[in-house]
Amino acid sequence: MIVPFHISELLTRLRERFDENAINRALMASKREVRRLRPARRASEQSARRFWERILADTDANKADSEMILDPQTVADLPAYDANIENMIGTVKVPVGIVGPLRVNGIHAQGDFLVPLATSEAALVASYGRGADVTAAAGGISAALTYDGVLRTPAFKFGSAAETGVFLNWVVQSAEALKAAAEATTRHGKLVSLEPAMDNEICFLRCRFMTGDASGQNMVTIATSAMCEYIVANAPVKPRAWYVEGNYSGDKKGSFLGLLTGRGAKVTASATIPADIVRRKLRCTVDEMLEYGRVANLGSLLSGQLGAQAHYANALAALFIATGQDAACVAESAVGFTRMEDCDGDLMVSVTLPNLLVGTVGGGTGLPSQSAGLRILGLRGSGKRPALAEVAAALCLCGEISIVAAMAAGDFVRAHERYARHR
Amino acid sequence: MIVPFHISELLTRLRERFDENAINRALMASKREVRRLRPARRASEQSARRFWERILADTDANKADSEMILDPQTVADLPAYDANIENMIGTVKVPVGIVGPLRVNGIHAQGDFLVPLATSEAALVASYGRGADVTAAAGGISAALTYDGVLRTPAFKFGSAAETGVFLNWVVQSAEALKAAAEATTRHGKLVSLEPAMDNEICFLRCRFMTGDASGQNMVTIATSAMCEYIVANAPVKPRAWYVEGNYSGDKKGSFLGLLTGRGAKVTASATIPADIVRRKLRCTVDEMLEYGRVANLGSLLSGQLGAQAHYANALAALFIATGQDAACVAESAVGFTRMEDCDGDLMVSVTLPNLLVGTVGGGTGLPSQSAGLRILGLRGSGKRPALAEVAAALCLCGEISIVAAMAAGDFVRAHERYARHR
Amino acid sequence: MIVPFHISELLTRLRERFDENAINRALMASKREVRRLRPARRASEQSARRFWERILADTDANKADSEMILDPQTVADLPAYDANIENMIGTVKVPVGIVGPLRVNGIHAQGDFLVPLATSEAALVASYGRGADVTAAAGGISAALTYDGVLRTPAFKFGSAAETGVFLNWVVQSAEALKAAAEATTRHGKLVSLEPAMDNEICFLRCRFMTGDASGQNMVTIATSAMCEYIVANAPVKPRAWYVEGNYSGDKKGSFLGLLTGRGAKVTASATIPADIVRRKLRCTVDEMLEYGRVANLGSLLSGQLGAQAHYANALAALFIATGQDAACVAESAVGFTRMEDCDGDLMVSVTLPNLLVGTVGGGTGLPSQSAGLRILGLRGSGKRPALAEVAAALCLCGEISIVAAMAAGDFVRAHERYARHR
Amino acid sequence: MIVPFHISELLTRLRERFDENAINRALMASKREVRRLRPARRASEQSARRFWERILADTDANKADSEMILDPQTVADLPAYDANIENMIGTVKVPVGIVGPLRVNGIHAQGDFLVPLATSEAALVASYGRGADVTAAAGGISAALTYDGVLRTPAFKFGSAAETGVFLNWVVQSAEALKAAAEATTRHGKLVSLEPAMDNEICFLRCRFMTGDASGQNMVTIATSAMCEYIVANAPVKPRAWYVEGNYSGDKKGSFLGLLTGRGAKVTASATIPADIVRRKLRCTVDEMLEYGRVANLGSLLSGQLGAQAHYANALAALFIATGQDAACVAESAVGFTRMEDCDGDLMVSVTLPNLLVGTVGGGTGLPSQSAGLRILGLRGSGKRPALAEVAAALCLCGEISIVAAMAAGDFVRAHERYARHR
Repeated sequence: MIVPFHISELLTRLRERFDENAINRALMASKREVRRLRPARRASEQSARRFWERILADTDANKADSEMILDPQTVADLPAYDANIENMIGTVKVPVGIVGPLRVNGIHAQGDFLVPLATSEAALVASYGRGADVTAAAGGISAALTYDGVLRTPAFKFGSAAETGVFLNWVVQSAEALKAAAEATTRHGKLVSLEPAMDNEICFLRCRFMTGDASGQNMVTIATSAMCEYIVANAPVKPRAWYVEGNYSGDKKGSFLGLLTGRGAKVTASATIPADIVRRKLRCTVDEMLEYGRVANLGSLLSGQLGAQAHYANALAALFIATGQDAACVAESAVGFTRMEDCDGDLMVSVTLPNLLVGTVGGGTGLPSQSAGLRILGLRGSGKRPALAEVAAALCLCGEISIVAAMAAGDFVRAHERYARHR
Repeated sequence: MIVPFHISELLTRLRERFDENAINRALMASKREVRRLRPARRASEQSARRFWERILADTDANKADSEMILDPQTVADLPAYDANIENMIGTVKVPVGIVGPLRVNGIHAQGDFLVPLATSEAALVASYGRGADVTAAAGGISAALTYDGVLRTPAFKFGSAAETGVFLNWVVQSAEALKAAAEATTRHGKLVSLEPAMDNEICFLRCRFMTGDASGQNMVTIATSAMCEYIVANAPVKPRAWYVEGNYSGDKKGSFLGLLTGRGAKVTASATIPADIVRRKLRCTVDEMLEYGRVANLGSLLSGQLGAQAHYANALAALFIATGQDAACVAESAVGFTRMEDCDGDLMVSVTLPNLLVGTVGGGTGLPSQSAGLRILGLRGSGKRPALAEVAAALCLCGEISIVAAMAAGDFVRAHERYARHR
Repeated sequence: MIVPFHISELLTRLRERFDENAINRALMASKREVRRLRPARRASEQSARRFWERILADTDANKADSEMILDPQTVADLPAYDANIENMIGTVKVPVGIVGPLRVNGIHAQGDFLVPLATSEAALVASYGRGADVTAAAGGISAALTYDGVLRTPAFKFGSAAETGVFLNWVVQSAEALKAAAEATTRHGKLVSLEPAMDNEICFLRCRFMTGDASGQNMVTIATSAMCEYIVANAPVKPRAWYVEGNYSGDKKGSFLGLLTGRGAKVTASATIPADIVRRKLRCTVDEMLEYGRVANLGSLLSGQLGAQAHYANALAALFIATGQDAACVAESAVGFTRMEDCDGDLMVSVTLPNLLVGTVGGGTGLPSQSAGLRILGLRGSGKRPALAEVAAALCLCGEISIVAAMAAGDFVRAHERYARHR
Repeated sequence: MIVPFHISELLTRLRERFDENAINRALMASKREVRRLRPARRASEQSARRFWERILADTDANKADSEMILDPQTVADLPAYDANIENMIGTVKVPVGIVGPLRVNGIHAQGDFLVPLATSEAALVASYGRGADVTAAAGGISAALTYDGVLRTPAFKFGSAAETGVFLNWVVQSAEALKAAAEATTRHGKLVSLEPAMDNEICFLRCRFMTGDASGQNMVTIATSAMCEYIVANAPVKPRAWYVEGNYSGDKKGSFLGLLTGRGAKVTASATIPADIVRRKLRCTVDEMLEYGRVANLGSLLSGQLGAQAHYANALAALFIATGQDAACVAESAVGFTRMEDCDGDLMVSVTLPNLLVGTVGGGTGLPSQSAGLRILGLRGSGKRPALAEVAAALCLCGEISIVAAMAAGDFVRAHERYARHR
């Protein structure tokens, strides 16, 4: 009785299916031979078909599956994927819906955007579409990139705090040389901040780079590596060990460092929705939305949320997949702060994302259908990253408005039933 | 000088391109007419072509883009996407690489899995492949689902703490009736825990559901909604407002609630790699990996990471996209704890993910290429969710081993250069 | 330039005073002989005087200091301190101010309390006094203990996840026996929850105890220890190691576990202050306070605060010292959530502390001046802990109201200047 | 059954004692007249006796209590407390034990310190004494202040993000003038960093001050206030509202900002304990301590601890009270990172506190018995703050070593029973 029911229930179910010996046997290492898979660094039809032979022989997948994944169009385009993946067997097709016009009044993003969203979650596109509709009717969304720079944080281990101190003293006095060493590896990357964090005999260097139009994670790795080589060659005390990344930068995961200091782009977006548009298009009142906003803010606090928002991840995952961004960066990018206020009877809504990793060149942005996604936005190529960041924030804002209204109006469940269950 | 350089630098760049008036004008609401997009709830060739007409007229996208996104195969399969998206314009093609065999010695997952990973990040598939190779050579990965249940957390607002107290007293005494009301909406969902959290006149009910083989987020929403309707109809005090979700459950975002109490599946996986395999296949020593592990653990602590791990998000995003999971759930799922220990000279590595949202039915799991992805794993359909969760954890383990070894051996940069720059 | 100025500045100052060799020498271990201090478990005048001989010989302290610390009253009372401290040399005198009447309308605390606060921070007592005045004028503060129980979390390490699973299965099935073993050590402690948390081969047991009127940290340690002894004697698999506390309970430090699940008492308090009292006594308007409240809430979110409040620690530290609580528990107790809302033009303010460690028996509550502090509150002895918890929350509320008003009215600086600088 | 037992148990107990109506009545505002307390800003015997008349009339406190609190020594010293408290009624006597010699090999703290600790928790002094003994036997504790500066973070609210941008642009370009305005108020304070954090129409300025030998919280408030006055008078856009502190600085509470960027002093301390000293004095082995260390680190991660340590709060609360520090700052200061490593068979232990608020002038450091405490340490007055910070960190290290050893050796419970129950 003092053990939570869901725990005893899980154990009961487990006991019904397995006895202890079965579980012990199941978890033991197995020495039977491993039939290794021969890797293929480059994508080719030959290697893809070789993989499929193995898949068809060894798994539940069938011929239709192989044709679905390794379809003729993909076969034709295989070289286009060459530098983006290994062991390629084809492509997965993620449905794309269009949302818009998303009116963005940004410093860099200006105009009415049609936004491609790749998702398999019913109601998601409709919900963002509603937000875009409401904000456009209100004159659009102000958006501004306010902070920039991708972190890489090499770590150095010494024999004592005294050694670390000598090292850091040298690092700080050699900052310009370190900057030069890092920047020699890249045309677009600039080392704009170098901040040591010392914990006794170990220290981390927070290196912040501006990365041009690339999301920049490889660029900063290479530049930081060059900087570290310079450091190790020239520092008056040699580290016992050093690492190009000390698992401190928040790369691919939520962290308070990213939330507090920014990582990638920091973007803010807001709109003021007139009370009558709220009533007409969102079927609730400004006060009802504010009321829910207060409860939702409390919910985020009481549950120890990293930030305080509803579902940026929905917008970002769908936009990232449709435009060739690194979907793993949803983990760190989908963090931020949504606020709502009464503005003379109208509703001011604001979002801030401190940690947005996007690019308009490099990574997956040049793949065939992903570059098409960026062209739909008009944001493919050089000079477009700040605008993409502002569009992403504006999109998040649409989703926050729509879900808050759905909650406030009691529509949320109905909407999901309507969209997901109409089969 | 007292202002950080990267901030003054960003402002300088901004000033070079825009004056204050230009920025003010840019951010102002615009009253020009909005050309709305007619929504299309169902996917059809007709509506897709209609959207493309607009896209081709209004954006940078061209005919080739439209053929890339709305290719013949996608056109033929449009009805298959019908219940998963609105305003569909086609599909984005995400390259899929294969990793394996991933040997999993799980309670539910047993055997050598070929794992499809959808990503555009060079080196990712190769890195996970290396982890799979190493762990298979060591006899495989133990994995166990240890905790289960998706949270939904409705909120109720009352006039005072006294009213909330009366309400909660009734809720606790009516728990079985509430459970019945919730479970009446679902064949597979079970309400297994109901825990109130009160903050003065507002209270949240943490409802934990077991959800069968679905990831279950819609299921728990509908069940909770029914429970709330029952509550509102029967409670001795009526809430002034109530919401099916009080932004407390951690849905689609990282939170300490999920980390602490689990949300979705909690899975743990581990392997012990003999020292000679470490040396031969990972080109470093057990001690070097442990040394980096200690630094990386410190890095995660000092940076306020939610959990302590390197890059679960890479594994999960790629697996989620390839198998029709909700990619937005990477935000909450990519949280956990990686540990390494010396085990009589060999290397024990362990991962625990408290918050893994996956399903083998529902959502995007039935889409044409996504269901193929699940069939490659042999994990499509009923009864397979626990095994998928164990495979996902085992995959994360492979990535942790590979990246730690790359860091410890100083290989990390070289590997990325090799894979990303071979064009 | 890319290194933050305050870091280079600190290094510059350091270099001005020390060269590298001096620092290296300073940090080195010293082998000179240690003149040990002979410990004295029991407090006696003889041992105190013996310590003072050493102090006077070896330190800057002088005879006046010894008379200040080891004053006649303290000498007379030495036996009273006997079970609370070792190596006793006297007492430190912390000034106590009185606040009130604090009108509390609690479930357990009822009436107008005079509250002793021990602090050396100017303006603190005055500020809390203002809050008490305002809330009393508004009819007092509602307060309720809503959750209870002190955590102790032993840890067990096994050889594998499989062993841990077998162990946990046994633990869950043996819960009643474990409860009995724990409760056999205590008259007042009850084990009311037992929840396992497993991370591969290691598991923690979250044990929650109700502890009667003691804050209960020693009680739960002893009870948990007995439970562990039972476990180790009877479990079907023996742990390789076990610990009565796995550093998981949040004892003496802020943690999201305490924030989320409560530790000690969870208490909530609120008051509604009429607009005219706000204006008259706080010299600002309800709207101004709400406006600051929104900014302050954003501040707490953006800075990654554990909870969201202004300065509970001021109230709790002063109350804890004056009433013999464990002042170290301020670290975990001073966490919570302050909210403000417009209530038909008046101001509703609410505080919730999930983690309050207080007692009215045991610990320092029986010391001569500390028990006087509790008697001033009328809360010394059995049956009074819930009321003390409610009073503590009400006191925190007073401080939040006062500081928010000071910030909103621009009074904050003036008040501190007035009180701190009147010498 | 699905409701946790401890919650239903609490409700059951409540129902046994109170019915709903009783609770409702109890929580209602009360309109009976309030007998206000006439405040006394200055401490005098007359006002203290006046307060006692009221206390004796209205509370459980008796004549003996009044003599205990308002003892002759305190009466004689009343003027000494004058600028530190309002409504003074006397002093509370907190027992002080002595620990040492604590051998510190710091940059600023050098030598063998006798450390006064004020606490009522049995075993605390003995435990720290054991740590001091062990580290002294090992040659002492290296300690270094590595970062410095107290934060104050004013907030400004504007009408739009565009206005905020214009404002921040001006702030950054006016940084030297702002620095001058701030520093004009103080002889010792230096504004060494000014970093804006913008969230749409609201911005915070993180102002970091070096504060000389004061803990500095009042100093930075006054300096920041002057800076804000300058800003408001001169900025090209006027804020709609501004506040000298936006609840962002982490003042008196744990926050990730403090943990990440430091607040107050950042100090690190470490010692390497030879294996034979571990065995002889701590009754366990290095491996046993490391084993517990790994479990404890996992415990801190799994429980969402702010930092990762065992009980810095015990050391800091006791030291703060004994030396006139602000005990409320335990809430923010008791955060940090403890690490242990094998060092060629010996045990390296390290602590880092990023957030330590201490002073050797100002606040309560000049009070009669508190200044005696500082003199025992030899750290009263100008130029001593860095050394006090290093001593505090060294003291925390002693506590970590002692508790880890107690846990590893299974001594923890026994020690508490021995010390607490010998009455």
